[in-house]
Amino acid sequence: MTGFVSFVGSGPGDPELLTLKAVDRLQRADVVLFDDLASGPSLGHARRGCDLVSVGKRAGRPSARQEHVNRLLVDHARLGLRVVRLKSGDSGIFGRLEEELVALRAEGIPFEIVPGVPSACAAAAAAGLPLTRRMTARRVQFVTGHDATGALPEDVDMTALADPSASTVVFMGKRTFPELARRLIARGLPPDTPALLAEAVGRPEQRLDRSTVRALAERLGEGIGDMPALILYGPLAFDETEDGLPGAPFPET
Amino acid sequence: MTGFVSFVGSGPGDPELLTLKAVDRLQRADVVLFDDLASGPSLGHARRGCDLVSVGKRAGRPSARQEHVNRLLVDHARLGLRVVRLKSGDSGIFGRLEEELVALRAEGIPFEIVPGVPSACAAAAAAGLPLTRRMTARRVQFVTGHDATGALPEDVDMTALADPSASTVVFMGKRTFPELARRLIARGLPPDTPALLAEAVGRPEQRLDRSTVRALAERLGEGIGDMPALILYGPLAFDETEDGLPGAPFPET
Repeated sequence: MTGFVSFVGSGPGDPELLTLKAVDRLQRADVVLFDDLASGPSLGHARRGCDLVSVGKRAGRPSARQEHVNRLLVDHARLGLRVVRLKSGDSGIFGRLEEELVALRAEGIPFEIVPGVPSACAAAAAAGLPLTRRMTARRVQFVTGHDATGALPEDVDMTALADPSASTVVFMGKRTFPELARRLIARGLPPDTPALLAEAVGRPEQRLDRSTVRALAERLGEGIGDMPALILYGPLAFDETEDGLPGAPFPET
Repeated sequence: MTGFVSFVGSGPGDPELLTLKAVDRLQRADVVLFDDLASGPSLGHARRGCDLVSVGKRAGRPSARQEHVNRLLVDHARLGLRVVRLKSGDSGIFGRLEEELVALRAEGIPFEIVPGVPSACAAAAAAGLPLTRRMTARRVQFVTGHDATGALPEDVDMTALADPSASTVVFMGKRTFPELARRLIARGLPPDTPALLAEAVGRPEQRLDRSTVRALAERLGEGIGDMPALILYGPLAFDETEDGLPGAPFPET
């Protein structure tokens, strides 16, 4: 008897940004393996008796090792269970999805991938910004701000990242942004390129800080705080007046 | 009396990939302006009496001009109505969102942006592919395959697109891909780089074709058909056996 694993992107954290399919899978799961980033209200959709297993970082405890997560996925599926592996944002973007797929394929365990709303899209939406612009941003790119050692990855194409006509979203990059900004400016990115720091996107404590690449790098050099964040930079269509920004609730009937 | 506009990303076409917030906005809208790509089953969530207005392309009829769409948004909102502007995928990615935001801001009409599942994420998920890979694809980029004239955009950074260590998704690029592939290979992208043609993602007629950059360019040079499509290329983790690919249904309770 073989179980089944559903990799489910939970979106950025706002439980209203779960998809209908994500809700369905949570409702029918026997066990949910979740990272803390993706947890909270989303887990409320799980049925009574569903086993909820945290495999992510938690204050004061080290992160579960990837091999341990792989093992848990395989072991639960082999019991014939319906397993949901909940990941924040879209599970195919900086979510270590591949390592878990490889483990399942090696054991012949069937699975599906349910895509979700990437936190990058949610951050842009919250700030009233399109990620692409018809004439000025025909390319959008997502990049990670750190490698396995926590440093800025050395093997990322810096010229591509310094292109002033692309919108760039840096994931997990608060700590390394001062160094990244220095390299981008050295490659010709104007220091006054618009930049947005988007913290705790989709959660009640969400903070959006509109700035420039240089000013944001200076600020983050002084301290980064502990909220998860994305950094967007490029030809961002900041509204100068900041009138008409999103935030007003949809009118009641 | 001022109305309200909610820009809603409907996801790739699978109605189960609507978010809970998208469903809520459709249920409470007085009028829905939709493109045909985003239509169909999603509109079933609109309440009785809601006005459904197609503003997208339709077989045999020209596309409504952008100015006309802007005018419809403003006019409906000025009547005090709750307007949903439904866009396929995520509305901030190649959706002409900016033009519509500018029109609303000029008139002081409040709005919100509800992010959605990008079709690029849904295509990768359907094929069992992570868009990022820990060591080999630390950057993912989305680019449009045509400019306003239908040609390959001349102002996109070809070096960034030829980077063999990035995953690239080309939107609306079937017609121009043979030319794009020629340029990428000329800049050093290996011709046997994995490529995926994903047609009608999220719909019953979905087709996935695993290939290489050179082979796909040859095939599209012979004819492109009429299904909407995305092209993914880069260090894609094609499973050689194609065993364990997604597709099996989530087991019933």
